[in-house]
Amino acid sequence: MKLPALVRRYVPILDWGAEYSSQVLVGDLIAAAIVTIMLIPQSLAYALMVGLPPQTGLYASMAPLVLYAIFGTSRALAVGPVAMASLMTAAAAAQVAAQGTPEYAGAAIALALVSGVLLIVMGILRLGFLANFLSHPVISGFITAAAVQIAAGQVGPLLGVGSKGESLLEVLHSLAASVAKINPYTAAIGIGAIVFLLWARRGLKPLLLGVGLPERPADIVAKVAPAMVIVVTTVAVWGLGLKEHSVAILGEVPEGLPAIALPPVDMTLWSKLLVPSLLICIVGYVESISVALTLAAKRRQRVDPDQELIALGVADVGAAISGGFPVTGALSRSSVNFEAGAQTPAAGAYTAVGVALATLFLTPLLFYLPKAALAAIIIVAVLSLVDLGALKRTYRYSGTDFAAMVGTIILTWIDGVEAGLMLGVGLSIFLHLYATSRPHVAIVGQLPGTTSFRNVARHTAVTDPEILSLRIDESLYFPNARFIEELVNDAVAANPAIRHVILECPAVNTIDASALESLEAINRRLKDGGIKLHLSEVKGPVMDRLKKSHFLAELTGKVHLSHFDAVSSIKPELTRATREAAKVSP
Amino acid sequence: MKLPALVRRYVPILDWGAEYSSQVLVGDLIAAAIVTIMLIPQSLAYALMVGLPPQTGLYASMAPLVLYAIFGTSRALAVGPVAMASLMTAAAAAQVAAQGTPEYAGAAIALALVSGVLLIVMGILRLGFLANFLSHPVISGFITAAAVQIAAGQVGPLLGVGSKGESLLEVLHSLAASVAKINPYTAAIGIGAIVFLLWARRGLKPLLLGVGLPERPADIVAKVAPAMVIVVTTVAVWGLGLKEHSVAILGEVPEGLPAIALPPVDMTLWSKLLVPSLLICIVGYVESISVALTLAAKRRQRVDPDQELIALGVADVGAAISGGFPVTGALSRSSVNFEAGAQTPAAGAYTAVGVALATLFLTPLLFYLPKAALAAIIIVAVLSLVDLGALKRTYRYSGTDFAAMVGTIILTWIDGVEAGLMLGVGLSIFLHLYATSRPHVAIVGQLPGTTSFRNVARHTAVTDPEILSLRIDESLYFPNARFIEELVNDAVAANPAIRHVILECPAVNTIDASALESLEAINRRLKDGGIKLHLSEVKGPVMDRLKKSHFLAELTGKVHLSHFDAVSSIKPELTRATREAAKVSP
Repeated sequence: MKLPALVRRYVPILDWGAEYSSQVLVGDLIAAAIVTIMLIPQSLAYALMVGLPPQTGLYASMAPLVLYAIFGTSRALAVGPVAMASLMTAAAAAQVAAQGTPEYAGAAIALALVSGVLLIVMGILRLGFLANFLSHPVISGFITAAAVQIAAGQVGPLLGVGSKGESLLEVLHSLAASVAKINPYTAAIGIGAIVFLLWARRGLKPLLLGVGLPERPADIVAKVAPAMVIVVTTVAVWGLGLKEHSVAILGEVPEGLPAIALPPVDMTLWSKLLVPSLLICIVGYVESISVALTLAAKRRQRVDPDQELIALGVADVGAAISGGFPVTGALSRSSVNFEAGAQTPAAGAYTAVGVALATLFLTPLLFYLPKAALAAIIIVAVLSLVDLGALKRTYRYSGTDFAAMVGTIILTWIDGVEAGLMLGVGLSIFLHLYATSRPHVAIVGQLPGTTSFRNVARHTAVTDPEILSLRIDESLYFPNARFIEELVNDAVAANPAIRHVILECPAVNTIDASALESLEAINRRLKDGGIKLHLSEVKGPVMDRLKKSHFLAELTGKVHLSHFDAVSSIKPELTRATREAAKVSP
Repeated sequence: MKLPALVRRYVPILDWGAEYSSQVLVGDLIAAAIVTIMLIPQSLAYALMVGLPPQTGLYASMAPLVLYAIFGTSRALAVGPVAMASLMTAAAAAQVAAQGTPEYAGAAIALALVSGVLLIVMGILRLGFLANFLSHPVISGFITAAAVQIAAGQVGPLLGVGSKGESLLEVLHSLAASVAKINPYTAAIGIGAIVFLLWARRGLKPLLLGVGLPERPADIVAKVAPAMVIVVTTVAVWGLGLKEHSVAILGEVPEGLPAIALPPVDMTLWSKLLVPSLLICIVGYVESISVALTLAAKRRQRVDPDQELIALGVADVGAAISGGFPVTGALSRSSVNFEAGAQTPAAGAYTAVGVALATLFLTPLLFYLPKAALAAIIIVAVLSLVDLGALKRTYRYSGTDFAAMVGTIILTWIDGVEAGLMLGVGLSIFLHLYATSRPHVAIVGQLPGTTSFRNVARHTAVTDPEILSLRIDESLYFPNARFIEELVNDAVAANPAIRHVILECPAVNTIDASALESLEAINRRLKDGGIKLHLSEVKGPVMDRLKKSHFLAELTGKVHLSHFDAVSSIKPELTRATREAAKVSP
């Protein structure tokens, strides 16, 4: 029986599930096993980072993964708790409740729910382009700023001192005040773990290759170094009795699967969390889709960006109804999943089974896990996201992009993640509109002996004093419509000899109603001054549209296919005196 | 002595004032006399419309005109109270105080002050482009909606019944409730005045020409018909004793010039009025600059849009410190000023003197002026601004522009002027960003026997199965950066034969940092899939910028001057089988 197309479109598992083979199963299972080993310590660490009990991290790593497997279109994306979304969740929840209260946990769940619903709505309405307004410099600046802030926030647990604060400044201030209270045992575990993890990145793989392990397994074992840290430090704390020396440990983690329950309806809370939820879901989506596209390209697979919105949305709703917090596709785990051989989204579902088994049977073993080890794992993970090179590259490439980037970083550090991101988006849109509002317009002249016209400021070109040829290097729409009016007005006022204005439009991709009005005004005003207006090289779709207006009927001049045609057909109309006075520029 | 350039730039009177001649003086004086006769009834009418005592309209017609004469760059703009700004002032003031209270009058003054300061700041920072975000369809829709609403608001005074309300719906509701209370004497005056004014538009000029008046004076006399209405109705009310029949009259208007005083500092009030002030000053500026540019073009004069912001700002501040309300350049009076022969902004200053003389000596004569006559003048004036043709033209030309226009009209009528305008601006920006985010991209093929490449959907063109040629008809920046990534990804996933992707960029006017990252991602992902990326026809400024990045070094293919060059240089690399399988489209 063939299912309706709509169902197939929104439920991709029906497509790939039908062709599922035992060979694919093996690849998916191996990948799932490795990702599970990475995910367990990360999910505990991110839960503590959000300020929630450790089991919520495990909860966020079950239902969402299964749901993504049903609705997702990426074959290798590993969904679950990630650093950025966790930081943003903590910041947003802290605005409505105090950490440790039931309201705080409720806020984290509500953030997952609202984010999820927003993503689903955006997916159905195909509003994925909204994510584009987080420009690359803004998101890159934000990730760098947030990574530094996350790392700073983990220095407290790493050294066994309290630290708190929403912005980097607050966190640093709080750390400075408690330097004297460092717990040497905790610090030894934390710093030791960091040193090991940093070494594992570069030194572990060569070592494993040295003892005869093939390339790929060596790669993957190096990636599960955090799990080794967990095992070794837990055993050490237990064996050496470090709990007696005030080393903070994870303690009891409730066994068993999460209860599935709809979060209570609370419109006041939801509306308060609307903006942070929007930011969380868009940042998560951007992170996720970029990983998904990169991995898909390696095997020439398709990823449907609109369906990804829906899949991540359903995953977030799944997190909300199973007591978790906002999730998204994770960069590091997705790469490992892909490298380890995941063939389909089913690998994610098997990972969820792995986490569920751990939650059912392994949590007692985590009792002595030192929190400092989790802090070390987070610090090493997020510091790899800091990209100072991007600052330099952007500075060299574009001043406005650099301004948006630096603005985002500074405001994130001073005023927190939400303010930083909002400023970045606002600045990007403002600077974009500003740049569009003053497009590049060149006076063009004829290259001697050719039919080509070029910018007189860049080339030696011939211009005629009675003809003003302007090449417009931008679409004409409301942000710049009046600019063109003013430009033509000024140019004509400055050159009393002008009898013809030709607008060369090869790069005008659209003319909206505002620009049409402006062209009509230009035409009317030039007519009042005894000057004809012509157009040249108008694109097909733009011309199709102009034909629907009165403009072409009112135009005092003509529309010419090429600029050379335009000038050639005007020349006979010019007075003899000026025909001989052609100027050569520059 | 030569003044510093900065002073000359900001005070244009120093330029034209130095060349002032007696011939220019005569032209300016005649124009000023005629504009004064138009302005007096209008200024009284607009003051009543705002809900202020009539003399405030006269006050708003003195200081602002003198200040504009000093700072303005348009030689014919007639500044003073206008319909749109008056309606918006009334709506904004009503939000903070009840009409008739001193707080209400204070709010109107504060609106003038804040609008003025905003305009001056925008002028100095050259932020005039902000006005562009009121797209033409939005401003045109707003003017139509507001004109209908103003006219509806004047039906009450016209018929001698009370009517109130901020939105059209409220006004209509209030009118319907008081139909029974129509005063027949008032209604006779009001409707009689409307009939005369409508006839004067078409019938008066031919009549005057018929009795031997030349064209231009006939034109101008027809434009001062409202002043005739004032004289005739005032005499009628006085002579027939209509005051006894409850015909509402203007009553006592205080003689004498306004006191000059700084408005009290009230940051709470000012911050409340910030958004309405911004809307008032931008709508006023847009109205004003478009009139100024149109008139300037007729005599090939220059108008400096940034200096116009400053001049209108100073005029508004002048209105505030002399007890007036927000002013701007008026369409009807500016045209008359121009036609009557105004040569310099000095005509405005002489108009101010005319209004001052009237305020000093003529106000007692206005005692019996019926308010219904003023209502008739407003109704006839604003209904000429209703432009239903614009709705039809915009509908035919552009669906998105039409949506913004209709949205603005409907929300203005339902929820008032501020909500209507804000929605319009928001819709324009959103629809613009949306359109930009999905640019037109064409698969191009070679026209047989030529070196030209065209859209395969529009032309019969040859494509090669191993080469994907995409022409991008839009600048590449953050709103569409990811769109291009996804597009290339999808196209390559769908055609396993592809070995080369060429992006043809003749209409790419800019590539921002986000788009650069996307191009780098596309290049990297294609490389992973064994595909080379090439560019062709990259513009000079765009290429200059790309050279500052690492992209060109990492590019797997090359940058070619023409698309033909690109395809020609790739062909030898192709396998023989596919070279023979070239497809002809469509």
